[in-house]
Amino acid sequence: MPERDLQYLAELAAQLRVDSVRAAAAAGSGHPTSSMSAADLMAVLFACHLRYDFADPGNPANDHLIFSKGHASPLLYSLYKAAGAIDDEELLTFRKRGSRLEGHPTPRLPWVDVATGSLGQGLPVGVGVALAARMERLPYRVWVLCGDSELAEGSIWEAAEHAGDEGLANLTVIVDVNRLGQRGPTRHGWDTGAYARRFGAFGWHTIEIDGHDPGQIDFALSDASNTRRRPTVILAKTRKGEGVLEVENREGAHGKALKDPGKAVEELGGVRDLRVEVHVPDEAPAPFRFEDGPLELPAYKVGEAVATRTAYGEALAALGAARGDVVALDGEVGDSTKTELFAEAFPERFFQMYIAEQQLVAAAVGLQVRGWRPYAATFAAFLTRAYDFIRMAGVSGASIRLVGSHAGVAIGEDGPSQMGLEDLAMMRPVHGSTVLYPCDANQAAALVAEMADLEGVSYLRTTRGATPVIYEPGERFPVGGSRVLRRSAEDRATIVAAGVTVHEALAAADELAAADVPVGVIDLYSIKPVDAAVLAEAATTTGNLITVEDHRPEGGLGDAVLEAVSELGPRVVQLGVTGLPASATPEEQLADARIDRRAIVAAVKRLL
Amino acid sequence: MPERDLQYLAELAAQLRVDSVRAAAAAGSGHPTSSMSAADLMAVLFACHLRYDFADPGNPANDHLIFSKGHASPLLYSLYKAAGAIDDEELLTFRKRGSRLEGHPTPRLPWVDVATGSLGQGLPVGVGVALAARMERLPYRVWVLCGDSELAEGSIWEAAEHAGDEGLANLTVIVDVNRLGQRGPTRHGWDTGAYARRFGAFGWHTIEIDGHDPGQIDFALSDASNTRRRPTVILAKTRKGEGVLEVENREGAHGKALKDPGKAVEELGGVRDLRVEVHVPDEAPAPFRFEDGPLELPAYKVGEAVATRTAYGEALAALGAARGDVVALDGEVGDSTKTELFAEAFPERFFQMYIAEQQLVAAAVGLQVRGWRPYAATFAAFLTRAYDFIRMAGVSGASIRLVGSHAGVAIGEDGPSQMGLEDLAMMRPVHGSTVLYPCDANQAAALVAEMADLEGVSYLRTTRGATPVIYEPGERFPVGGSRVLRRSAEDRATIVAAGVTVHEALAAADELAAADVPVGVIDLYSIKPVDAAVLAEAATTTGNLITVEDHRPEGGLGDAVLEAVSELGPRVVQLGVTGLPASATPEEQLADARIDRRAIVAAVKRLL
Repeated sequence: MPERDLQYLAELAAQLRVDSVRAAAAAGSGHPTSSMSAADLMAVLFACHLRYDFADPGNPANDHLIFSKGHASPLLYSLYKAAGAIDDEELLTFRKRGSRLEGHPTPRLPWVDVATGSLGQGLPVGVGVALAARMERLPYRVWVLCGDSELAEGSIWEAAEHAGDEGLANLTVIVDVNRLGQRGPTRHGWDTGAYARRFGAFGWHTIEIDGHDPGQIDFALSDASNTRRRPTVILAKTRKGEGVLEVENREGAHGKALKDPGKAVEELGGVRDLRVEVHVPDEAPAPFRFEDGPLELPAYKVGEAVATRTAYGEALAALGAARGDVVALDGEVGDSTKTELFAEAFPERFFQMYIAEQQLVAAAVGLQVRGWRPYAATFAAFLTRAYDFIRMAGVSGASIRLVGSHAGVAIGEDGPSQMGLEDLAMMRPVHGSTVLYPCDANQAAALVAEMADLEGVSYLRTTRGATPVIYEPGERFPVGGSRVLRRSAEDRATIVAAGVTVHEALAAADELAAADVPVGVIDLYSIKPVDAAVLAEAATTTGNLITVEDHRPEGGLGDAVLEAVSELGPRVVQLGVTGLPASATPEEQLADARIDRRAIVAAVKRLL
Repeated sequence: MPERDLQYLAELAAQLRVDSVRAAAAAGSGHPTSSMSAADLMAVLFACHLRYDFADPGNPANDHLIFSKGHASPLLYSLYKAAGAIDDEELLTFRKRGSRLEGHPTPRLPWVDVATGSLGQGLPVGVGVALAARMERLPYRVWVLCGDSELAEGSIWEAAEHAGDEGLANLTVIVDVNRLGQRGPTRHGWDTGAYARRFGAFGWHTIEIDGHDPGQIDFALSDASNTRRRPTVILAKTRKGEGVLEVENREGAHGKALKDPGKAVEELGGVRDLRVEVHVPDEAPAPFRFEDGPLELPAYKVGEAVATRTAYGEALAALGAARGDVVALDGEVGDSTKTELFAEAFPERFFQMYIAEQQLVAAAVGLQVRGWRPYAATFAAFLTRAYDFIRMAGVSGASIRLVGSHAGVAIGEDGPSQMGLEDLAMMRPVHGSTVLYPCDANQAAALVAEMADLEGVSYLRTTRGATPVIYEPGERFPVGGSRVLRRSAEDRATIVAAGVTVHEALAAADELAAADVPVGVIDLYSIKPVDAAVLAEAATTTGNLITVEDHRPEGGLGDAVLEAVSELGPRVVQLGVTGLPASATPEEQLADARIDRRAIVAAVKRLL
């Protein structure tokens, strides 16, 4: 590289440091030192390797850049300024109320794909974005900036395994090995070899460099771009706070504005106003998409016994035929969740993520960045493994569809480790989430189709065992709705149920009716948003509600009902799973947990 | 090894296979084939290497055996039978209601340390058990049986990193590489070298063997025991369903009883009744314990402003001086959670787990297996990363103390990725959990001490910013209690708050009192169990409750209140964080989320 170019890159990096210091100074907080260590890396990437049209962030040929170390946001925003995407005035709004320049990047900024700030997530999401390129037959590249501390997260190694195994050559990880974590030295310090051995073992091409040498950085990035059949990790030895003596390579300087920013800026050579001309990508063909067709959802006869998980698999396969943008992901349990039915029909749109639920959800998030409509399924219990990813998907406003099978004690003999009993509680508070829980196969199929057009994180809860079909094929079940299955002017109470407990509620209502105690029954298949109007009507007419769910009483369907009617003051009895289940048949489990027909009858009688 | 011994081991393994087939046949379900692949491995372990006194499972010199592949429970129970711990009659109660022999092992059995069945958890827990040996100065060994499928879990690599870095030579992992996962081949099949490269890169001693050759198995287990300064992984190539043609090394034979168990038993040589004499450990000194002392909790002056996270750190250090069995774990944020105060005082009882929250929680679970009282802390938001481990700790009945700092929007500028807004919803449904949320430093200190004697999973939620001290030092705050801070016979409503919102509620009550609207205020520091009596009194006297929390409205404090008073029918208004916060000051955040004093006043006025 010519000396003039090297000088420009050094100047650009100095500007990024200066602007990082200035932004944090204006905010009075933030992470300037974690930005300064990676400034040279990003200066060379922006000036020489990134292909991105800042005027058109939706250009499908654009590369993707993910700051997995989201706390280095001052550096990212300084890069945006250098690229002309934001001005200096906006840069100095960093971390202030109303600013798009948040403490950690979020997609409020059009150039940010996903929110980061929970470490170890940017790389797994990047894997999903890189996987999409194959389907789309596009040559874009995915660049992920990681910190060294976050390499301790298991999710990084789920991603390393998947990317290595898939040979994702369009994925490059740049690790800013600045040796210092939040509260002191990292485990491996500057031993980039330790990281190289690990990534190498997972099948990656590894490059170790001085992260402050623009020539070495440029060579490494070129090498990464030219590497075939393997992802590349660039392990760059850097100094945290590089360029300012007060903080350079010192402990105790994490996550704070500098004490004397004026002096620091001076030390860095003063304020500059360089521009970086980021290469606009060459014109590329439109992304490949699979064909659409008519939607023919499976139809089940009323009275048949069909598991809702089976309906999920069959409906998903039908949806795949109808919509070319639907893709499906499996956590190595596709024969249980019935995702296998989609996999058989559409192998080129199916992703086997093996038993790695964090990567499962992260890949879904990455795929939706590129406009695909992912459905990712595993046992409801095992989605808890990915809760932080689901939470962050909510922060990102990512549109992903999650399906948890084998919910509740109704699974039977397998025991509590396999029972999803906390999944509704986990999914409801996720920002912008939708939570659905069908009781029969036709309803499940209809909801699978409804989910396709939902924005944000949506969740469908399915059941292992077969349940009777009670709805006709083709009936509609809008999100936010409910079904009143029993209602009369004489009702003395209303039972609110979903999933397996709907059938228990119906049996209980029949038994009560025979004993001259008429009660209503509501199928609350949409747990969030909830049908507040129908619940309010029941609360004000009968005044007595019984909620019953195959889930812990904390945070699930019962709480959703209570929230909806809390200002109306009905009496509500909640039935849910309180003890620790063991092995038993499904029927024994429902009885032991006191959520079966008998328990409902007893609760109604007690309440009245 | 003499031929006679090899013959005995082969016969013992055959018996384990036969009994696994018989147990699953009696149950009509279960995982016989995943048991059969590992039968030789476990036969040699039990006969020649394990040191365990089945008559005294509490013997501190006992080795620990963890079936990380918990679905191989038929094999474990067959081993117990061979060791004389259970009889054949009990073996055949497998998976039946009331049996201790559940689908996946739980500590209902006295020889099981922790529940398994959520894959990838046994090894991280084993790391905790192995770490305890150093503190206790005991020579016990930790043996973990893993499946090959579960090596895709990131938590395995968090554990591999920690064990390798710590050089846990007392830890041996035996991987049953049977090539077949639930729904088909694993990623690496029989390529044990792929796994060896990965574990080797993380600093482990690796051995690749034929897992059906007792001589090779014995050699490998001896080699593992004799290896210094490094943990060992034995990668054993096996055949799933080994010994029965119908299922051996075949897809589609996972997790099912055999079709013709009689024929399978015949093929395996018929029923045997061999006993295995497991070596009882040599007498060992009592486990080393640190000294106890008097408890002198920190005392804060009323009116001072102190962060509850600071009180946590100071109280934990005080507790460490008082109780030698208290240990603390950090997820590389000890300067934020203030765990660093304990680390400085008691470095030999402090565990830096780096940014690996799953391993953080798993190590705590492992340490409590050995009788230690662990406190593990990170940001409340990042505990979501470990939710499956927390859920399973509940199933295990493990007594661990978790602390989530930086809860809620009150953190201010850092933005939503760092805000714990789902943690209460996540912790409440965990089986046997306790959930605490202090509002001032003296209360926080008292609750830290209370937690020491709690059984099960307990959780303390702390706040980043300083809050005014409102309680005198030394006041008691029993779990399940609350504090009525304002109450009069004229109260027209009652505000229920916890943590930061207590101070907003008090300010709102003062403002309302000035406007001649007297309202009560309850500090609900114990979210679970909740003080139902005090809430019921408020519900029946004022009849109007306002709940206010720095958390999503779904699943948190408001729902806990609703659950407690649902049968009484008061009117309840819930205030919580509904939108997606961005960067802003703590005060701006509380106002924007409408959980500040102003919002409370408005809600009360609207309700009345």
